Order: sequence, then C-alpha cells, then structure tokens
Amino acid sequence: MRFVDIINKKRYNQELTDQEIQFFVDGVTDGSIPDYQSSALLMAIVLNGMNERETAYLAKAMMNSGDVIDLTSIEGIKADKHSTGGVGDKTSMALGPLVAACGLKVAKMSGRGLGHTGGTLDKLESIEGFNCYLTEEEFKKQVAEVGIAIIGQTGDLVPADKKLYALRDVTGTVESIPLIASSIMSKKLASGSDTILLDVKYGEGAFMHTIEDATKLAEAMISIGNSLGRNTMAMITDMNQPLGNTIGNAIEIREAIETLRGHGPKDFTELCMQAAEIMLMQGKVAENKEEARKMLEEVVASGKAFETFKEMVRAQGGNVDMIENPELLPQSKFKTEIKSKESGNVKVLHSERLGVLAMQLGAGRETKEQDVNHAVGIELACKRGDKVNEGDTICIVYHDEELKPQWIDELYHAFELTDEEVAPQPIIEKVLS
Amino acid sequence: MRFVDIINKKRYNQELTDQEIQFFVDGVTDGSIPDYQSSALLMAIVLNGMNERETAYLAKAMMNSGDVIDLTSIEGIKADKHSTGGVGDKTSMALGPLVAACGLKVAKMSGRGLGHTGGTLDKLESIEGFNCYLTEEEFKKQVAEVGIAIIGQTGDLVPADKKLYALRDVTGTVESIPLIASSIMSKKLASGSDTILLDVKYGEGAFMHTIEDATKLAEAMISIGNSLGRNTMAMITDMNQPLGNTIGNAIEIREAIETLRGHGPKDFTELCMQAAEIMLMQGKVAENKEEARKMLEEVVASGKAFETFKEMVRAQGGNVDMIENPELLPQSKFKTEIKSKESGNVKVLHSERLGVLAMQLGAGRETKEQDVNHAVGIELACKRGDKVNEGDTICIVYHDEELKPQWIDELYHAFELTDEEVAPQPIIEKVLS
Repeated sequence: MRFVDIINKKRYNQELTDQEIQFFVDGVTDGSIPDYQSSALLMAIVLNGMNERETAYLAKAMMNSGDVIDLTSIEGIKADKHSTGGVGDKTSMALGPLVAACGLKVAKMSGRGLGHTGGTLDKLESIEGFNCYLTEEEFKKQVAEVGIAIIGQTGDLVPADKKLYALRDVTGTVESIPLIASSIMSKKLASGSDTILLDVKYGEGAFMHTIEDATKLAEAMISIGNSLGRNTMAMITDMNQPLGNTIGNAIEIREAIETLRGHGPKDFTELCMQAAEIMLMQGKVAENKEEARKMLEEVVASGKAFETFKEMVRAQGGNVDMIENPELLPQSKFKTEIKSKESGNVKVLHSERLGVLAMQLGAGRETKEQDVNHAVGIELACKRGDKVNEGDTICIVYHDEELKPQWIDELYHAFELTDEEVAPQPIIEKVLS
Repeated sequence: MRFVDIINKKRYNQELTDQEIQFFVDGVTDGSIPDYQSSALLMAIVLNGMNERETAYLAKAMMNSGDVIDLTSIEGIKADKHSTGGVGDKTSMALGPLVAACGLKVAKMSGRGLGHTGGTLDKLESIEGFNCYLTEEEFKKQVAEVGIAIIGQTGDLVPADKKLYALRDVTGTVESIPLIASSIMSKKLASGSDTILLDVKYGEGAFMHTIEDATKLAEAMISIGNSLGRNTMAMITDMNQPLGNTIGNAIEIREAIETLRGHGPKDFTELCMQAAEIMLMQGKVAENKEEARKMLEEVVASGKAFETFKEMVRAQGGNVDMIENPELLPQSKFKTEIKSKESGNVKVLHSERLGVLAMQLGAGRETKEQDVNHAVGIELACKRGDKVNEGDTICIVYHDEELKPQWIDELYHAFELTDEEVAPQPIIEKVLS
C-alpha cells in the first residue's frame, strides 16, 4: 500500500476502505507517514468528506492506537458525558454527582481550558489538594466505591489523535465533521464507558455556530458510538449566552455546589436535570423521564447529590472544607461591579467575548503552557431576557490586577440591550439518539 | 501573516491576495514554511482551485524565486516552445532548426524523460559528445550566432517549483490546472524568451486525457504568459498514438534528421510545419501562414534546416558525422520484427503502453536516478488508419537484451485492429491564443 494512492483516492472523492484508514492511523501513530502526507489527506477529507462507515472506522482505529480503559470490573452500567465546550460550562461538576447519587457509575475523563473555553480540570483544581491524576486502578476503585471520579487522561489514550490534532491545528484542517467527530469519539470510546451523552453546543461561544452544524456533528458522533456498540445520545444546547452566571474557576465550582444544593441558576439547573434524566435512562437506573426526575429531585432535596460531590472531592484529596464553605475557595484581590449605562431588555450576551475576557483576566489560557488563576472571573448579574435599568449591576468582575480600560469597553460590548421583549429560548434545543 | 490563515482562506474557497501567494512562495523557497503546511495548501488549491489572477501571480512569484535568464543582449525576438510531454515526441530537434533556419532565435531549455515519456536531452545525448550543459554566457552566444541552442536548465531556475513539485508528487496534488500551469509557465518565463508556443497534448499517452482538459490547461498557461507580457499561444495535439514512427533516443534523432531533410513521417512533419508557422508569426519573421510555409519549405528543400541542426550539434560539441550518417548513431545489439497475427485497419495504437515498453527496453527511466540506453527503442511500421495484413511487420523492436514474453504480449496489446474504416484524425486539434 502506498500512502500517496490513499491520498489520491480521497482527493478524487472516493471511499476509503477500512484497511486504508487503518494504514493511515497506524502510520500516524508510529510516525512512518510523514506529516506532509498526513496533512494532504486531512485537507482532502476536510473538503471531500467521509461517509458514516469511514468516520466510524477512523474513530475505531484511533481508539485502538493506544491504551483502552477496561471498566468491566466495575459493576453496573458506566456512564460518560462529553461537552463540545463552551463558556461557563461547569456541567460535569453538578451533573456527575447528581446521577452518581442516583446510583449510576460515572467514570469521566476531562480536559483543560484553551482560549475562550474553560476546562473541568482547571475548575476542580480550584479546590486545594484536588488530584486530577489518578492511576487507572485508583480511578476504577473510586468509581466503584464513590460512584464517580473526574480525572485527566490516564495512560496513553489515543496517541493518533494527539498527533493528528497538533497537525490539524496548524494546517487549516480543524473544521471538519468527520475529523472532529472521530477525534472526540475515539477518546470517549477509549475511556471505556458503556453509555455516552454528548452535549453539543451551538452558537457564538461554541465550536459549531448553528443548530444545523451542531446537529450534523451530533449525528456523526452518535453514528460512531452506536456502530461501536455504545449507547450514545446527544443534546443540542444553546451557547449564545454563557451557561449559568459564572465564568472562571473557583466561582464556577461555587455555582456547581449551589446547583447541587438546589439553588443554582435556572438555565444551568435545567440543563443538568434534563441531561441527568437522559443519563439515568441510558444507564437503566430509571425507566422514564418522570421516574428519573423524581429520583433527581430527591437526591437534591436530601443533600445526597451534594454529599456525593464532597465524597468525590475527598477521595481525590481535595479540601472538603472548601466545598462546605465555598467562601474558602480562592478569592480574587479585587471585585468590581459593572453598571449598566442604559435601560432595556438583555438581547445578546456575547459568550465568546466574555470567555476571552475571562481568559485575559487570567481564568483561562491562550497557549497550552500557561497556568490559570483560579480566583478570577466574571459573574453575570443578568441573562438574556432580563430587564436592566440604567445603573443596575450587569456583572461583577473578580480580578487580581487593575482592569484595563479596553477590557471594560469589551465588557460593555458583550451586553446588548433592546427596548423590545426578548423571546425566551430553551437551553436544550433538542435531544438526538 | 500566519500561514495557517492563508491555508484556511483557500480551504474556505476564498481568493488569495498577491501578498499571500508571495508569502507562500517565499516560505517554500527559503524553507520557512514546513512541508506539512505547504501540502495542506496545495490540496486546498487542488480541490478549490485558483482564479486567473491567482494562477498568474503564483507563476510570477515562482519565476522570481530564483535566477531569471536575460536574453535581451541577443538581437531579435527570442522564441521558445514547450510540449507537455508525449510518446515519440522529438519535436524540438526538428522544429527548432526549422524556425532557426528561417531567422528566428530559439533559446530552448529542455528536460529529461521519466516514465513513459522521453526527454529531449536524453535524445540529444545519443549524439556522441553532445553537451547539454552550457553556461548562461555560452548559451546566449550560441543562440546569437547559430540561431538555436537546446540545453538543460542553467543556473538556479525556479527553486520554488523544484521543491513544490517534489512535494506534490508524494501528496496527491499533481493533477491541478493552476498548479500545473504555474509550474510549467514559471520555468518558461524564467528562461527568458519573448514568445512561447505550447504544445498541449491530449489522449492516452498524455498528461491530459481529454481535449477539454488539455484546452483548460492551455488556456490557463496562455493567460499566465499574456498577463506577464509574453506572446503565448498553444496547440492542442493528439497523443492517442505516438508521434511519428519512433520511440527511443537515437532512432528519434534519426527521424528528426529525416524530417529536416524533407522525408519524415506525415503526422510529425505536419505538426512541425504548423508549429513552425505559428512560431514564425509570433516572432514576426513571417506575416502570415502562407509566407511562413513558403519559407519553411525553402529551408527544407535547400538543406538549410538540416545545416542549422548540424551547426547546433557542432556548437554543442556533438559528433557531426553521426548527423550526416545516422547509421553511426548508437545501434542496439538486436533488432526484432513483430508480425501481425491478424488482418485489419489499425484502430488504436496505445501510446502509454508503447512508452512504457520503450522505457522497459531501457530507452527511458522509471526513477530519476536511472541512466538511459540510447540505442534501444521501438519503430512503428504502421500508424492509425493503416491497413495491415496477417504476417505484416507492425513494428521493429531495437533491444540489447532478450525480449521478455510479457513484453511481446504487451506489444501485441498496444495494436488494436478493426475491420471497419478508421476515420482520420488531425494531429493538431486546434490552436489557441
């Protein structure tokens, strides 16, 4: 097999065989295919596409390019959820304990933030002592005993994806449904869960800008998951405003705790509850939505959901006092309230701008090598549809250095008011399976 | 400027600016753009195309990536012609002396053969002592004095093309009109002639298989040439059978000599005469076709065309005795006549198969590093439309080693006979300007 023939096939929009895709992934993994050939094939895939079979096989071959976690020693159905990333997305911290408190086993590997989107691991590390790096054995033991563990990648998972992603990043080949879907799903498949719930975000602050594109990506990922024997579902959710009221690290942990205690923000609570219903049904813990919702309301009311989060934090070495008293979480030096200069209804809350601002404050990182500041961030005092009067606080900025005038300008630009009524928009657009 | 942004632009089918194309060519030339980024852009160009302006600028930037030959010190209009390559294509050796004998200055840089197509330099080196490597000064002096020189590339012409071509060859990005056109034209432009006649071949033995594709390539090259101030024209010519009767090196030189002496094969003579007419008009040596044809017939009849070829050979150190007595040219050890097994009219003469067979005999090379055998080759005893009887010789094979049975099989497969009349097809399909 000559790799140039495989490139030429895709260049002429022909379907690649399993063997050809395997040859590609093997060659990327062992370095026998030079990057200049890989990038040519990637561009041909970007422009000519891949069908469902090719995409599923690509995900499978990538999954098998490294370690594959075996969770079968843990009793019951193991559930995973994945978000395509957004601004203010603290879902794992609330959703995970919620469903674990209902008896589902949650074995979750998360990532770090980059650019305008935050990362679950960065947020969890706001908690003093929290250890994201368990061994595979520790990870499985905790999932079996506590019901949930959230860690960084363990072992050598999907090395082909690491190499391909680095190459795609510098060769204009990131935006491609088959490549994005197989990249995400190869990692989900390799981390061993039986069921996968995908939270595919659309809108300004999301990777996919339209509902249509988000739906296509979701369908591609569901097809991969199901064709490889995992019960896979997806929610298409709104990222045209940040999720919940907080964007940062410690302040997002605080909001997740509030949500687990039953007084989180409306949109975020709704997302968590609906996602949890789906996960409980996928995991056969509940038979239907109503039963699931009842269980979830019980674990919130009884405090069991919050207790499960605390247990997870304790098991992973985190300071539980900080969970019981969130004011002990890292605090910024300064706290500045931004007041509205006009009156009106909030029409647009630019997620990406707010995400970038939070990053510039230090809550996120522009390049992979940077550290994050756990204390800083932005807390929204209003969301889309809210009525705001001149002089009302629109947001609170938590910061450690003086606010630059252009940041304040940008903040104002992130809020757009209107005199007209703003129609409500559901946080979950639709659920796909 | 970030190169990934340029790739992304073309990935989204947007037009690149002159500055962006220049950035690409500069980066390829000085090595600052890694191959994996270049190949991604090349694939995006292959699939999304380039418009006329982009293609012309790419050719210009490539031309300027290295030395540019300045022929202005030679009096009169300097003419060049370029063939996209075919089987049995010995045109430069006959056409060049023909027009030079009429007073046109021909400053021609040629290449070597690869795969099923031969190369002018390999053919000329059949002549003992012939030197293809003149310095730029020697080259100009000879063009001024003799009227013609045919040499290999001198100086560091179009280094960007050398690098890009090597990369395209292994990344499935060869077949693209803008890339092929700019590659060919950058070299023609850098070699300094005022007028360019392109012989764009179509058919089985050619790079472009259909008249339509050949026309598109020709139009792209004409657009480049004209936009950069060179009078550029093109002929679309038939390569569905080999050109003339010989495929090899020494035997093609012999055929060129016969043609210069007025008794060459009909199709080849016709191609040379019509091409020469165009070149003489481009070079303002003749006002119209009729005048040009008259001049050409005179230089053949008077022997001046043949004398010009001899002078060129002498000036480049070649053994002129071999030109006067072509039987002194390298002779193969064996000569085998292949007889027809059936009767009929020749319908198809598979050029590519015959080209590959000649290469396998040793007349050509499969990889750039190989040497060629000047003595071997194939002489056709019939051409398309000819009547053949069982037992008639269809071709003569000149060989140095025993013919392999599969070669003979292949030879038979290269000739297809039919009972029906075979309609004649013009050697020149059309002329474009």
